[in-house]
Amino acid sequence: MVVTSGNQADLVRVRLDLAYDGARFSGWAVQPGLRTVAGELTDALTTLLRAPVALVVAGRTDAGVHARGQVAHIDVPGDALDRLRARDGSVGPEVLARRLAKLLPDDVVVHGARLAPPGFDARFSPVSRRYAYRVCDTRRDPLTRSFVLWHRGRLDVDAMAAASAGLVGLHDFAAYAKQRPGATTIRTLLRLDWQRVDEGPDAGLVVAQVEADAFCHSMVRSLVGACVLVGEHRRDPSWPAQVLAARQRVSPVAPAHGLTLEQVTYPPDDDLAARATQTRARREGLSEPALALEHQEQDRG
Amino acid sequence: MVVTSGNQADLVRVRLDLAYDGARFSGWAVQPGLRTVAGELTDALTTLLRAPVALVVAGRTDAGVHARGQVAHIDVPGDALDRLRARDGSVGPEVLARRLAKLLPDDVVVHGARLAPPGFDARFSPVSRRYAYRVCDTRRDPLTRSFVLWHRGRLDVDAMAAASAGLVGLHDFAAYAKQRPGATTIRTLLRLDWQRVDEGPDAGLVVAQVEADAFCHSMVRSLVGACVLVGEHRRDPSWPAQVLAARQRVSPVAPAHGLTLEQVTYPPDDDLAARATQTRARREGLSEPALALEHQEQDRG
Repeated sequence: MVVTSGNQADLVRVRLDLAYDGARFSGWAVQPGLRTVAGELTDALTTLLRAPVALVVAGRTDAGVHARGQVAHIDVPGDALDRLRARDGSVGPEVLARRLAKLLPDDVVVHGARLAPPGFDARFSPVSRRYAYRVCDTRRDPLTRSFVLWHRGRLDVDAMAAASAGLVGLHDFAAYAKQRPGATTIRTLLRLDWQRVDEGPDAGLVVAQVEADAFCHSMVRSLVGACVLVGEHRRDPSWPAQVLAARQRVSPVAPAHGLTLEQVTYPPDDDLAARATQTRARREGLSEPALALEHQEQDRG
Repeated sequence: MVVTSGNQADLVRVRLDLAYDGARFSGWAVQPGLRTVAGELTDALTTLLRAPVALVVAGRTDAGVHARGQVAHIDVPGDALDRLRARDGSVGPEVLARRLAKLLPDDVVVHGARLAPPGFDARFSPVSRRYAYRVCDTRRDPLTRSFVLWHRGRLDVDAMAAASAGLVGLHDFAAYAKQRPGATTIRTLLRLDWQRVDEGPDAGLVVAQVEADAFCHSMVRSLVGACVLVGEHRRDPSWPAQVLAARQRVSPVAPAHGLTLEQVTYPPDDDLAARATQTRARREGLSEPALALEHQEQDRG
């Protein structure tokens, strides 16, 4: 799976699966003078591969947002990857993952590195991204406070669930997005579930699972902000859908630290290239109605 | 329930239930110039009660050790407590807990404050303390790294469980304790369970539940250190019990950040005073055989 690219050396695409605690990062994207996830990863990868690398990511998380199931890819000169050899006979991406583990700070963990299947693109191939937003409205646990929002007063989760039902589907989410000039805010919200969790890792918390083909900038946190107002009985359960229809930004944006990118879902390997082509075409407005322009250009949870 | 104490004003005993993230604390006990849990609490209580308070605690956790179920008591002049009145008509300890929540930093949470039943003593009345030690030997989660030890390589949990069986019971734990002159190291270890957890909040982790009447200084972390060597197949499962019998300190002390005080168990209210008297008597060596001298003088996880 070697990609020849003009006058460059042969490039090999490597998929990275990673997790991070967003607390001490100014978000994913590299910004001069700021500590970012992509910045830390790029530094480590450049050291290991002795070549400049460009990271392409599934979800460009904002400052303070966490990830457990983030996916990125890099295109690496084949010979740089071949040079990575461990004493036990391992070569290539497996060695890369192990060496990254030693080089990275403890708030970024690369769970795996492997050769990407043909047609794979971390940004354009996904069929969906799933985020979780965690709220504690009862007994506060200081040990999990870095990824759980503490809310004063009990939330009406049934009302929040009712409100969420009116938001799922293909809509223009302009009311729940930071506008960017020329970018569409049309998305398909596949899932917005609120639950008071009884068991498992989130037992005792109120958790939203939010899944879409892609998200506009600050979309998850705006949807959460609207639902929390409903849970506080400060707005009627019908209000978030009314806001959606009016396309006016009035909803508060929930704090970043409650939000975690949990999972990015890709289609079966055979469909990766077609999915990426379709997404790119939408972005460039070549084959889709205007409504879907740049439909999935970016994901900004 | 007012305790008259010589020339002091009438004192009322208040029980505090609390949790904290130990990461940024130099342990429980006040130390000049260092940030400690007791220091933060004492400052907040003194501000609220406008009177000096002395905290008495169930488990004097070391630097970096966390607590979810810590218990302490304070003796407060009755009139200082009476002055605490909320607009909704609440008075006394309930108001104290609410005001503490506003005053304390977010790494200490007071879950409740209430009048202590007669005979209650946070330090001398407990029948047991339970700690959990959490280890991750598979997929690392940066979001929980502040209270989970990351271990390289898979642990043999069956071997660790087998080793633990030989440690439970009434023993001299000198081999697993930092010695203090004149203090006994005899304790009753009620439980030392190692499990690879499938469900619940700790799913995916290897967790030890460690319960005793009381613990010597660094005892839990020394026991954990010995068991981890067994889990790594660097020592035989019979080794920790041999170390115990030899009374020689050879076991490594596991890092503090994996340890959390989960629960302090008190006897039924009717037995509180008798239990405290019994513990104090042991400490003073008045009515117990030498073996049990200062049996439960302190708990230092």
